[in-house]
Order: sequence, then C-alpha cells, then structure tokens
Amino acid sequence: MSHEKYQSLIQTLHDCMEACNHCYNACLQENDVKMMAECIRLDRECADFCGYLEQALGRGTPFAEELASVCARICEACGNECKKHDHEHCQKCAEACFTCADACKGIA
Amino acid sequence: MSHEKYQSLIQTLHDCMEACNHCYNACLQENDVKMMAECIRLDRECADFCGYLEQALGRGTPFAEELASVCARICEACGNECKKHDHEHCQKCAEACFTCADACKGIA
Amino acid sequence: MSHEKYQSLIQTLHDCMEACNHCYNACLQENDVKMMAECIRLDRECADFCGYLEQALGRGTPFAEELASVCARICEACGNECKKHDHEHCQKCAEACFTCADACKGIA
Amino acid sequence: MSHEKYQSLIQTLHDCMEACNHCYNACLQENDVKMMAECIRLDRECADFCGYLEQALGRGTPFAEELASVCARICEACGNECKKHDHEHCQKCAEACFTCADACKGIA
Repeated sequence: MSHEKYQSLIQTLHDCMEACNHCYNACLQENDVKMMAECIRLDRECADFCGYLEQALGRGTPFAEELASVCARICEACGNECKKHDHEHCQKCAEACFTCADACKGIA
Repeated sequence: MSHEKYQSLIQTLHDCMEACNHCYNACLQENDVKMMAECIRLDRECADFCGYLEQALGRGTPFAEELASVCARICEACGNECKKHDHEHCQKCAEACFTCADACKGIA
Repeated sequence: MSHEKYQSLIQTLHDCMEACNHCYNACLQENDVKMMAECIRLDRECADFCGYLEQALGRGTPFAEELASVCARICEACGNECKKHDHEHCQKCAEACFTCADACKGIA
Repeated sequence: MSHEKYQSLIQTLHDCMEACNHCYNACLQENDVKMMAECIRLDRECADFCGYLEQALGRGTPFAEELASVCARICEACGNECKKHDHEHCQKCAEACFTCADACKGIA
C-alpha cells in the first residue's frame, strides 16, 4: 500500500509543511515585511504543495514520482530563500525544506 | 443538481477568488508591504476558502449552507481590510469580497 | 500563538484526515463500491476540510472558531456514514471522525 | 504579469476542473460505481490539481512550467480513463482533460 510505502516521506512532507506555515505566519509579523516578501510567497507555495502531496500519497495517488519531483524543486527554492534570512523561523524552515527536497528526490 | 442550483454563487466565488489572488500577488510587490501584511494574509485565506467552496458546490457537497455561512464571514473580513487601502487592486478586491459575502449570505 | 494554543486540535485534525484518506482509498477498492458511494464522498470532503483547518490553524487564521464549527458538522456526518459499514477502515474512520468532531466543538 | 500571460491556460484549467468535479459527482451516483472507481479517483485528483494550478498561476507562481508538466500527465491519465466509459459526463470530461493536457504541454 502506498500509504505504508511512503510513510517516511509523508512525515517529512508534514514537517516541512508545518515549518513553512509557521515561517509564513512569523514573516507576516516581522518589522521588515518588505524584505520577507519572497519568503512569504515561497513559504505558502511550499506549504500548499507539501500538504497536497502528503494527502495524495495518503490516498494512493498514481502520480507519486512526478509530484515528488516538482515538490523537490519547490522545497529547494523555498529553502534557498529562507536560508538568506537570520530569523530563527527562517533558518529552521530552510532546514526542513532541504530535508524534504532530498526525501522527494529519493522517490522522484 | 447542486451544480446548477448554485451556478450564480459559483461564478461569484470564482470572481472573488481571482480578485483575492491578484491582490495577494500585487500586495507582495508593493513598497509598503508591512502595511499590507493583514491584507496579504486575508487575501490568501479568502482565495483559498472561496476556491474550496466553489469546488465543493461543483461536486454536490451536502454542507453548502454551513460552508457559505463561514465564507460570508471570511469575505467580509477580507473586504473590510482591503477597503482601507488605496491601491486599485485592494479597492477592486474589497468590492468582489462584499459581493461574494452577500451572495453567500443568500444561501446560508 | 495560535499554533501552540491549538496543538492538540491540530494533531486530532491530522489523525482524522489520515483516517479519512485511508478509508477513501480502501473504499474505492472494495467489491461493494456502490454501497460505499456516500462513504467515499464524505471521506474525501472530511479529509479536505480537516487538512484545510489543520493548516489554517498552523498559520494563525483569525477564523478558528467558525471553521471548527463547520468542521465538527462535517466530521459528524462522515462518522455517521462510516459507522454503518463493517469494514475495519470504516470503523476506525468513524472513531477518528467522532473524536475530531468533539475536539472541534471544544473550540467552536 | 503571470495572470495575464496565462489567461487562456487559466480558463482551460478551470473548464477541466469543472468537468472533472461534475464527472466525479455523477460517477458516484451511477449504478455501476464499481466500474467507475478509477474514474472517480482520477476525476478528483485531476480536479484538485487543475484547481491548484489555476490558482497558482493567478498569483504568479514561479513554478508554472514544472507544475504544468505534471498537470499534463494527470489530465492525460484522467482523460484516458474517462474515454473508456459511455456516460455523457465521462465523454465530456475526457474531452476537457485532453484539451487541458495539450494546453499544459504548450507551457511546460
């Protein structure tokens, strides 16, 4: 079953989604919102896609490889943006994104 | 059929979702992003919910009334925030949100 | 922070979403799919809404109460349908749905 | 602006999403639900992804090409399944899916 086969990836996607949503929320409350604009955009995009893929795997999608390949690309872009910023939520999010990108590449 | 019964609301939800996504994207590119933070947050929340309800109605959800009632509340909050800002995308979005809030109340 | 305040509900929503997606996938592979049609529909509706609310809480939505109130209603409807069927995935899903409905009512 | 550049694709994605949600809903009410199980699954997957891409383009996603490439693959799979069934909603959905797959390939 897909759900079991992908259990570890599902958890990694979930952690990344949570880190991105947390970073998104925190960025919107920073003083330097202008500087965080791309971070806000990519956090939300990445959270949405990781959340989507997590659920798709949980219901046996036949498109796991293709979706994981795009997800890796989005996670990498988000991680690269987050890495630029010193806020703790950004640094943690970058880490979660790179971990998730690697996990996605393992499937794709 | 739900799809036909709600044809007009589906279109209104769609127009609101498009206005919110456009306003979200434009706000992220403004110089005064800090001032637009709540607008960014609510635009995205409102776009997501309108898009969700549009699709739920299109596949015959049995929860049309309850969902429309929450949607009205979200549209109103987003419209009230957008109304405060002079950017054309905000003013247009406020209008789309209030129209959609009214349409949702008509069902709820 | 919303994320921390709602930590327990977020986990309950997540468990319910997983049970619903698993039940959806399993129902589509049963021999008696006709009998499972409403279960398939409600599983998917419930998974989508729980997943949405989980993420909305994770990014500090100002609409927690209203969304939780609708979510309780959807979880209850899904639980009532699942309860009718003897499949283990349906019985487990019913349980997750009722637990989640109660947790949502605690917020709403 | 992305929103304008992709206006025609956005409409095609929307039409495909609507056809898939309508087909999903109709399949769940057919007498031969068992025979429609894969159609139900793919309709829903395709509707979700087209709806997601439509919105992502509407807010200027930097991943248009990658997402369109996966979308083409999902639309094709859904169209191939729908084409097998004589129901009018399946035939119409197949047509919408193939049109959308072509439009996505034009971007990807």
